[in-house]
Amino acid sequence: MQLTSYQGRALSILDNIGASIGDLIEIKKGKYSFTGILMPTYSADDSIVVLKLENGYNIGISVENSDSIRILKKSQSELATKELVREEGMSEIKIISTGGTIVSKIEYETGAVRPALSTKEILNFIPEIKNVAKISSEVVFSILSEDMKPEYWIKIADAVKRGFDQGNKGIVVAHGTDTMTYTAAALAFSLKKIQGPVVLVGSQRSSDRPSSDATINLYSAVYVAKNFQIGEVVINMHSTSSDTYTYIHRGVKTRKMHTSRRDAFQSINDIPIAKFDWAKKEIVIINKNYKIPDDETLVDAKFSSKAFLLKAFPGLNGEVIDAIVGSGIKGMIIEGTGLGHISSELIDVLKKAIKDGVFIGMTSQCLFGRVNMNVYTTGRTLQKVGVTPLDDMLPEVALVKLMWTLAHYEELEDIKKVMRSNLAGELSPRHVINEFPRWEYE
Amino acid sequence: MQLTSYQGRALSILDNIGASIGDLIEIKKGKYSFTGILMPTYSADDSIVVLKLENGYNIGISVENSDSIRILKKSQSELATKELVREEGMSEIKIISTGGTIVSKIEYETGAVRPALSTKEILNFIPEIKNVAKISSEVVFSILSEDMKPEYWIKIADAVKRGFDQGNKGIVVAHGTDTMTYTAAALAFSLKKIQGPVVLVGSQRSSDRPSSDATINLYSAVYVAKNFQIGEVVINMHSTSSDTYTYIHRGVKTRKMHTSRRDAFQSINDIPIAKFDWAKKEIVIINKNYKIPDDETLVDAKFSSKAFLLKAFPGLNGEVIDAIVGSGIKGMIIEGTGLGHISSELIDVLKKAIKDGVFIGMTSQCLFGRVNMNVYTTGRTLQKVGVTPLDDMLPEVALVKLMWTLAHYEELEDIKKVMRSNLAGELSPRHVINEFPRWEYE
Repeated sequence: MQLTSYQGRALSILDNIGASIGDLIEIKKGKYSFTGILMPTYSADDSIVVLKLENGYNIGISVENSDSIRILKKSQSELATKELVREEGMSEIKIISTGGTIVSKIEYETGAVRPALSTKEILNFIPEIKNVAKISSEVVFSILSEDMKPEYWIKIADAVKRGFDQGNKGIVVAHGTDTMTYTAAALAFSLKKIQGPVVLVGSQRSSDRPSSDATINLYSAVYVAKNFQIGEVVINMHSTSSDTYTYIHRGVKTRKMHTSRRDAFQSINDIPIAKFDWAKKEIVIINKNYKIPDDETLVDAKFSSKAFLLKAFPGLNGEVIDAIVGSGIKGMIIEGTGLGHISSELIDVLKKAIKDGVFIGMTSQCLFGRVNMNVYTTGRTLQKVGVTPLDDMLPEVALVKLMWTLAHYEELEDIKKVMRSNLAGELSPRHVINEFPRWEYE
Repeated sequence: MQLTSYQGRALSILDNIGASIGDLIEIKKGKYSFTGILMPTYSADDSIVVLKLENGYNIGISVENSDSIRILKKSQSELATKELVREEGMSEIKIISTGGTIVSKIEYETGAVRPALSTKEILNFIPEIKNVAKISSEVVFSILSEDMKPEYWIKIADAVKRGFDQGNKGIVVAHGTDTMTYTAAALAFSLKKIQGPVVLVGSQRSSDRPSSDATINLYSAVYVAKNFQIGEVVINMHSTSSDTYTYIHRGVKTRKMHTSRRDAFQSINDIPIAKFDWAKKEIVIINKNYKIPDDETLVDAKFSSKAFLLKAFPGLNGEVIDAIVGSGIKGMIIEGTGLGHISSELIDVLKKAIKDGVFIGMTSQCLFGRVNMNVYTTGRTLQKVGVTPLDDMLPEVALVKLMWTLAHYEELEDIKKVMRSNLAGELSPRHVINEFPRWEYE
């Protein structure tokens, strides 16, 4: 296990003795001796080493004037990384770990922080899962979710396919929350046929905090993967600030709308497909418009990184757009203003890019609602020069779709056609009134 | 008045006879003759001319096979553009017109569409305003709101100052909705002292539609400008889908959250300052945290256009960032993921830019909540290389603030300090639970 959180002096000392997060460490300082499990540091002071003492408390000790530091016992769990563990017999649900708070923070319970979990550890942490399904797990990789990239999406898609091919009924993907919706979209566009639920899950609060959502989210994700007859990529996260239920959102219609709240993930331009009632252990369908499982799983995961997401703003100038296009991109999603606009001064630059074969699609920075480029002159002119309106697609989802499309099609007209087609529920023909949240303050 | 909405054949014919929107036109076609006021076209067919007939209906006529087209009477209202009209005696409220649906669509009533209004026309349209305040108006310019840019912000700020200096108690700025929040932020940072309310107002629906919000929004904006003892830049728009009240939002804490709904404008990371009850004609304060008026109005409006807003996404590569920085920008706001992250692979590129003197500030694409770059390794490393966390500031507001700051300070350390300081209520030290809207579907 890496020492990712350490830097400077503490890192060099820990590195020197070959210590890993999770190891039992002893630090001697004059007449004092501290023994505990090595934890990641959250201190700005790079001389501090954090140990979890036997009484459960964490202590920060400066290595500055310590007399000695040594490893008493190596972490047992280190070996679990990148292993594939199976429960006895055939598993029903496979948990794919990619990293993130949900898997790393669970480890706080055992004293070590690692961004990956073996099946045994999951079952130790949430023993009730045993009553829900036989599970297996695969650690695909262990990264911070902000480091997610298209290459990794392909690995996750392949692991999902492998999971279904191994006979599992559903797949749970444990993922960091920062980029979970991008991955959900990438899986939705890559999995052309799906045999069962693909449930992404994460947690906003570490499991060492009383308000952690890790247990409820992971338990309900496994429950949904086992019991919900759906052939879509969904996101299962806390619904409201209470612990009563989670929402099962359509992956291509979800956004992380808060930096820290447990109910940060919400449907945009769609309503959640279902909710999972935690007390009753029951899936309640809210939105009947979902796909049933296919009889096989087909993966077509290829992504181009020649795509860019440009947010329009007053004062944005043509030279920057020229520079972005000149850096070699083949497609750009504009997060325009209102119904899908950008300053009319920029139309010529866009026109030129499109003539050079660059796809340009329009979404709205309002996020809610749909672009309509027929109402005002600017919208009509943008369409005339070849900008493609992308309806009610979320900007981030449109970007991921563009990465997928650019990797599959060469001709601009084909790319336009695919971008305007509904591939995985990312375009909603109609909206209902209660899709917009209520902003009431009394 | 321009013929902005016309293109192609219709434009060339109308141009040829010197027609303007609002003119009384006669088109002859065989044995038929059509007489009506020239309206803007919303037809994709560029041969169509739209006339408002005497019976109130609009008719689209192809100029293809018409025998003749002529002007019977020039529009009276053309002269009103760029004029400064005063009601008799001293005015109490000044309405500054910049363009947008609220002022242009009001003109539908009279048959012509112009993006600007004289005082007389406003009073004709909403006679009740006479009972609220003596008004005057100034047409600063008439643009589509997507074409707003920093130079125009300066003109609006100057007009606000002029309005207060002329003795008005409050100023109403009629603005297109696309970029209204950017302008609100620009005014908030430019007006270092404000003598009374500066109320931005727009409309999402044209006044020729039964569900128009133009009347309620403009009426209530004038009411608020006259009666609310506040020295801030606020946005007054429909609160919910009903017509019962408008919200008075803090300009630097508001976002357009829907492309078309009337209640699109909502407070983010703050609660509205007040609501205006339309039935009772009453201002109800919701949030006591607001600034009272200063005893003078001071303007310091300068903006640099060397700023860029970069949205982080998986697969974003360093070359594009290099290209953007290389295009000559002096500052960049990142709309990072989650608590304020970007792929750790990009840290070196950012580090280099900062070393070259470029300011880089971090906000979150979650929009709600605040960045916290102390929790995870990536955040701490980003801070170490010089990325400035911008707390709970909205990305768009941070961008406008950066444009203002870059025009006032040279040294990177000064820019950082100003960006981290609360200038106009854009940073909230604490959030309350009901700032996050309710996402409930039953």
